[in-house]
Parts: sequence; C-alpha cells; structure tokens
Amino acid sequence: MKLIRFGSVGQEKPGLIDADGKIRDVSSLVSDYSPETIAQNLLERLKAADLAALPVVPDGVRIGSPISRIGHFIAIGLNYADHAAETNSPIPSEPIVFSKAPSSLSGPNDDVLLPKGSEKLDWEVELAIVIGQRADNVTEADALSHVLGYAVCNDVSERSWQAERGGQWIKGKSAPTFGPLGPWIVTPDEVADPQNLDMFLDVNGERLQTGNTKTMIFPVAHIISYLSGFMVLEPGDVITTGTPPGVGLGQKPPRFLKAGDEMKLGIAGLGEQKQKVVAR
Amino acid sequence: MKLIRFGSVGQEKPGLIDADGKIRDVSSLVSDYSPETIAQNLLERLKAADLAALPVVPDGVRIGSPISRIGHFIAIGLNYADHAAETNSPIPSEPIVFSKAPSSLSGPNDDVLLPKGSEKLDWEVELAIVIGQRADNVTEADALSHVLGYAVCNDVSERSWQAERGGQWIKGKSAPTFGPLGPWIVTPDEVADPQNLDMFLDVNGERLQTGNTKTMIFPVAHIISYLSGFMVLEPGDVITTGTPPGVGLGQKPPRFLKAGDEMKLGIAGLGEQKQKVVAR
Repeated sequence: MKLIRFGSVGQEKPGLIDADGKIRDVSSLVSDYSPETIAQNLLERLKAADLAALPVVPDGVRIGSPISRIGHFIAIGLNYADHAAETNSPIPSEPIVFSKAPSSLSGPNDDVLLPKGSEKLDWEVELAIVIGQRADNVTEADALSHVLGYAVCNDVSERSWQAERGGQWIKGKSAPTFGPLGPWIVTPDEVADPQNLDMFLDVNGERLQTGNTKTMIFPVAHIISYLSGFMVLEPGDVITTGTPPGVGLGQKPPRFLKAGDEMKLGIAGLGEQKQKVVAR
Repeated sequence: MKLIRFGSVGQEKPGLIDADGKIRDVSSLVSDYSPETIAQNLLERLKAADLAALPVVPDGVRIGSPISRIGHFIAIGLNYADHAAETNSPIPSEPIVFSKAPSSLSGPNDDVLLPKGSEKLDWEVELAIVIGQRADNVTEADALSHVLGYAVCNDVSERSWQAERGGQWIKGKSAPTFGPLGPWIVTPDEVADPQNLDMFLDVNGERLQTGNTKTMIFPVAHIISYLSGFMVLEPGDVITTGTPPGVGLGQKPPRFLKAGDEMKLGIAGLGEQKQKVVAR
C-alpha cells in the first residue's frame, strides 16, 4: 500500500494510491494517519478497504506529509561511506544519532523556507523509516517487523547552524520545512529490498546526488535494533537514515541553496519530491 | 494554578491543586493535559472551574507526568557556570541544545529504570519550561508570554552513552524513565521570578546538588527567544534548562547510580520528586 495525505495545510485527509495511480479518499475509514491511528491497527483497517468503491481525489491537489505528526524525528548522520569522505569525516564506528524538531515536518512539494540568518542551506536525499510498532531492545532479526513503511525524506540542513553553533547538530536540522516527507509511505510488502534502492537529487535540473541504499554503513535493521537499546521507538516515530554523496557541503567549492533554487529528489519505488527555496 | 495528572500509567486524569493542597479532578472540564488541549485555550477553561464543586482525589494516588505527551523534549546543556566547571567544560558562548526522546517522559515519583548496559547513570535537577503558545522568532521581551508554566525535571543521563558513543548527547538522555516531570506544572502567575528559585537533589538522603536558577548562564527568556530562531516551538513542547553543580560525574571520584538508590529533588514553589533506581 501507498499511504498519502492530501489537501491544504492542516486540513489534510488520508488516502491510498490505487492500481491506476489515482488517490482514493479513505477518510471514511480512518480519521488520519497519525501516531495514534498507527498504534491502532491502521494497516489492518486499510487492508479491508474496497478502493474501487472510494472517492477518487482530483488531480492537482496538494500532497501533505504522509503522517500528520511525527512522534520523534530521529536522524542518522554520515551513514554512507562516500558521504562521510566528502565531508572530511571519519567513518563512524557506530551510528551517529541526532534529531530534528517535529515542527520541521512538511509536505513533499511544499516550499523550503530559507531561515532568517541562514548562510549554508543544504540538501540531503534520504530513506526514511516510519515505525509501526513499539520497539524496545529489539534484535536485528526482529527489527523490520516494527516498520510501518518507507518514505523519501529531504533532511534539509543549515550547515553553519549544524556545525558552528555549539556542536549538537539539532540546531541546523530543525527549522520549519526542513523535513519534507513523502509523497507517500510505502508498506514493506511493496519494497523488495530496502538495502537496494537507487536514489537521486537534482538542484535546478543538475544531478548532484546519486546513490543506492546498498552503500549504507549501518542498514535499516541495524539502525532500528541499535536505537531501540538507547530509547523506546514508538508508532509514528520517523528515522531518516543518512544521505549518499553529493551534498552542497561536499562540492568543490561548497555550494549552498539560495532563494529561487529548485530541488527534485527521489528513491526508486518510493516516489519523488520537488521543492522551491523561498526566503522567509 | 498547579496542573497535575493522577492515576495509573496510561490512565491518568487531569487535576488542579486547590487552596488546601488537595487534588481536584477536572476531567469533567478538559479531557487531558496534552499538546492538543494546551493549544485550545486550556488555561482559560481551567480558570473558569469552580474547584470547590469538583471531586477531591483521595490521598496516595499515583502522580503521572503533568502532560500526557511531549511534542518536542528539548534540553539545554551546561547552563550553570559552576556545573560547566565541575565537568571540565568551557563556559558555552551560546546555549548548547540537545533533545530527549519523548518516550523518556515519566511520572515524578516513578521508578527510574537502569537500562541494560548502563555504566554511568547520573542525576540532574532542572527547571523545565512548558510551552503554551507557538513561538517562531520571538524576542526576549516577548518570550515569557509563550510559557504555559514551569515544572521540576530530572534530566536523567547515562554519561558513557552521552559522551563516548558518537558525540551527539541524545543517546545518553533518552531511555525510558529518563524524563521524570512534575509533580505539577505551575503557571507563571504563581512564580514570582523564574530566575530566583532554589533547587536541590539528594541521593540516599545526602544533599549533592544545591543551586539557584539565578546562576543560569542563559536565562529562560533568552533560551526561548534563542531556540525560536532555530526551530518553531509548539504548545506542549518542554525545554529543560540545565542543571546546577553536584552531578555524579562531577564528584571526586565520579559517582553513579545503582539499583536501589533513591533520589529526591525539588525546586522552591514547584514541588518535589522522589525516584528509586530499579534494574530493567
């Protein structure tokens, strides 16, 4: 299944993508896609849906983030060996964990707002995991059974705030619209191998990031198991798992986003996002 | 007003403390204290309550965290000059910001669970701010109008996970029960000066932390204004503002918690907490 939310900001409704690629409105079956409904057998209720009998949503509607609210927005740093190299960072011996403010969440095609005082706005195409089941000290073998699905995330970053303002990365990862997610959450039955997905990101039509999740240092199952030893993961938590090479900070010379720039990014089987950078 | 939640874990109801110090059950007026109800004029609805007409809650009931769920659990590091000194850290030139997993939240007197593999479990009495109104690039002068109230927080920390596992502090701040909050949220009208509050923490009856919020490097108004430039603060976000000297890491030699230890901590006018350390 592909879970999508559509409608104006704050008024989104839940939908599913049907066999023809159309959005079907499932708001008669579930109130929303949220940490609360995920915890209450969301997928079982959706599986029972007769999509052909549900309203088709007209083309051109705005797509929101595929979850109304993130419980805990966790991120993994430097999880691709060649990205670590391009930022002159050593290969981590265990996952680097930081977080993004839940208020950074935005729709996949919403404008990315250049914050006041921003100097080094950067892009990061990433595979995001949406947690479906509470995970507390789970093994790697059992980890993937806690996944609701996968989505594209742009881990938008302000590099000077991330690295030059006290050392904890959260400052550079949390501004409004720094977390475009979607267009949809794809359930694991439709993702043959989360460790073999091509990914890309273009800026103004130029291909800058090219990668594949097979070059992750710490794969999805390891990340979930590892995190669950430090904290309980809950339904509706989102973990964005790091970015392949080609970020602005890694260009020679470094290159950062300015108002008017356009990003396009995607992961095979998980859809594409498109954002314009706009000054606040 | 003093906002309190009482009842068994996951079944808490909202209450207010009356003039005699008794808990009055306000669940007939508001469903719960949560990010959602805080955003919907919670205090106005509570101000209209006739406490004398509401049920008295029997003594001895369990006290839960005074909010059902934290939107974003933010923490400030090394915010007392003498605490920075005891941990051999330089005085920060601007606030150090990290976060705790929302799932670390627990009641003020619940057991603190010693995580599997923990070696250096430590205590930190702190003044926590509960955000009442959305804050986006607010000035210091306007910052305090965004506060719902204040509470005691024990920023329980696993020092080896915080400092020796990759550099981002979140790993050592996020285990279940690492965020005892309460016993209640005190509204600002009952806190004469948040920058002049005595605070203490005892372990097994021995006074180890003694401090006052007047020695904060970055006061409450500055923290809110500062954070709101990096991220939007939302109703139900909690910011715990750093700890005074006397943590275990600062003892000579360092001293950490073990199963069976008891902590008691408090802040003048904001109440007291008491926790027993229990192995998981």
